[in-house]
Amino acid sequence: MANIELWFTERQTDNLTIGLRVTGTVHSEQTRYQGLDVVETVEYGRMLVLDGCIMTTDMDEFVYHEMLAHVAMHTHPNPQHVLVVGGGDGGVIREVLKHPSVERAVLAEIDERVIEVSKRYFPNIASGLADPRVDIQVVDGIRYVEEHPGEFDVILVDSTDPVGPAVGLFSRAFYQSVFRALRDDGLFAAQTESPFVNQDLIRRVFADVRAVFPQVYLYLAYVPTYPTGMWSFTLGSKRHQPLPGPQAARTAGLRYYSPEVHRAAFVLPPFVQELIRG
Amino acid sequence: MANIELWFTERQTDNLTIGLRVTGTVHSEQTRYQGLDVVETVEYGRMLVLDGCIMTTDMDEFVYHEMLAHVAMHTHPNPQHVLVVGGGDGGVIREVLKHPSVERAVLAEIDERVIEVSKRYFPNIASGLADPRVDIQVVDGIRYVEEHPGEFDVILVDSTDPVGPAVGLFSRAFYQSVFRALRDDGLFAAQTESPFVNQDLIRRVFADVRAVFPQVYLYLAYVPTYPTGMWSFTLGSKRHQPLPGPQAARTAGLRYYSPEVHRAAFVLPPFVQELIRG
Repeated sequence: MANIELWFTERQTDNLTIGLRVTGTVHSEQTRYQGLDVVETVEYGRMLVLDGCIMTTDMDEFVYHEMLAHVAMHTHPNPQHVLVVGGGDGGVIREVLKHPSVERAVLAEIDERVIEVSKRYFPNIASGLADPRVDIQVVDGIRYVEEHPGEFDVILVDSTDPVGPAVGLFSRAFYQSVFRALRDDGLFAAQTESPFVNQDLIRRVFADVRAVFPQVYLYLAYVPTYPTGMWSFTLGSKRHQPLPGPQAARTAGLRYYSPEVHRAAFVLPPFVQELIRG
Repeated sequence: MANIELWFTERQTDNLTIGLRVTGTVHSEQTRYQGLDVVETVEYGRMLVLDGCIMTTDMDEFVYHEMLAHVAMHTHPNPQHVLVVGGGDGGVIREVLKHPSVERAVLAEIDERVIEVSKRYFPNIASGLADPRVDIQVVDGIRYVEEHPGEFDVILVDSTDPVGPAVGLFSRAFYQSVFRALRDDGLFAAQTESPFVNQDLIRRVFADVRAVFPQVYLYLAYVPTYPTGMWSFTLGSKRHQPLPGPQAARTAGLRYYSPEVHRAAFVLPPFVQELIRG
């Protein structure tokens, strides 16, 4: 029985915090790239923290991972070669592997420690990483994308916030590399922060992706542990429109994604539409 | 230039907080019913707090007020007589009045101080309260509903959390009164907390409304200042299905609601559907 309460607090913006009561720290280290902590929260279970920012929790990870992976994966009629940039916890890879068309899923994660710590402390999230179709590359994702032109059907950018090592993942030059790394009918999706508190970023990313891809879309999902709870994703596509195909079998057991949720996620409130008006 | 930082912290659950940096307190009192505070936040502008819980902010109030009012108001083909239970800040009334069919909008708010303080410090939110169609009743909403059978086309329940004075607004007996207070093709909507952290409440309310109304639906909206950011509303209807009518004119100038958002809000992720499976 604890005599004191321990709270983890993330400063989500200069003027906004989320606080989670924790029962203790499971792991803490400074990797070559970032601070990496694992704590047990009472509300959301075990939580992965990078540089003080919540990455994921056992309770709500399904939303982000399903919605980053399945919208793009269901947009492509036959995704065989898939690249996840970042995403060392393995959650997006786990969802990608639910698509039987996938022959190879490359994880390009710069920080090997995120992979190792996730395998150890988040076995459910990391469960796909041992799959024989998965090719784990501990590399700079930007360089990996540059060096693999024309190779992928789907690229998913599961980055941290646009500070530190992830800054380059929010640049037009990177989206141009992503375009080149995709096959002729390829497409990509990236997490792009909150329409309430990251409006400039969303506007800029959308314009940059629009300058590179013939089609660009924004969609939304509810992620309780991210700032404001309203999270955006940007999808750039060379050919396919983001309508869910008739692959209902791919969605068995999902807790957030469904073909109906796929469609509804692209319906933007007017104040969000306003952000991306060209 | 302040030497210190001031933060308002709400304990949203026993194990979860939201923190907002404030520049100062605008108003603070203990009313007959509850603590009432108005503070200036940096992130979300001016904020109304009842018993330590965030009710609304100038920045995000549009989401909650539009989505509580317009979904029900657009479901009814000709809403003339409308009752708002609670909602003393006037935000829901303001949205109701955007429908030209409305002849009378009754506000049944138990705490006159909420009305007065909102008029003074939230002139934008309270802007509808001076409209000649508005009938402000400082009364117990439960009793008001009981005493006005067969009178309303639409009833909107804009309550605080189900503690203190609002407990009775989450009971089957209240939904039975609401049913009786509605006309033969009437319908009602109520705010019903977060599908992530208030699952038992949502399940119970949904079952209770289903026991009283021939039709019951749950819908969702993104409210950054409420716990988890995912907020639910329960709609009970005697006859009309919650599809938006062709009244596009009613939605000019709205920032969250649109006919497309109306439809999409009823698309529930599987984990939310699971909560209300009968």
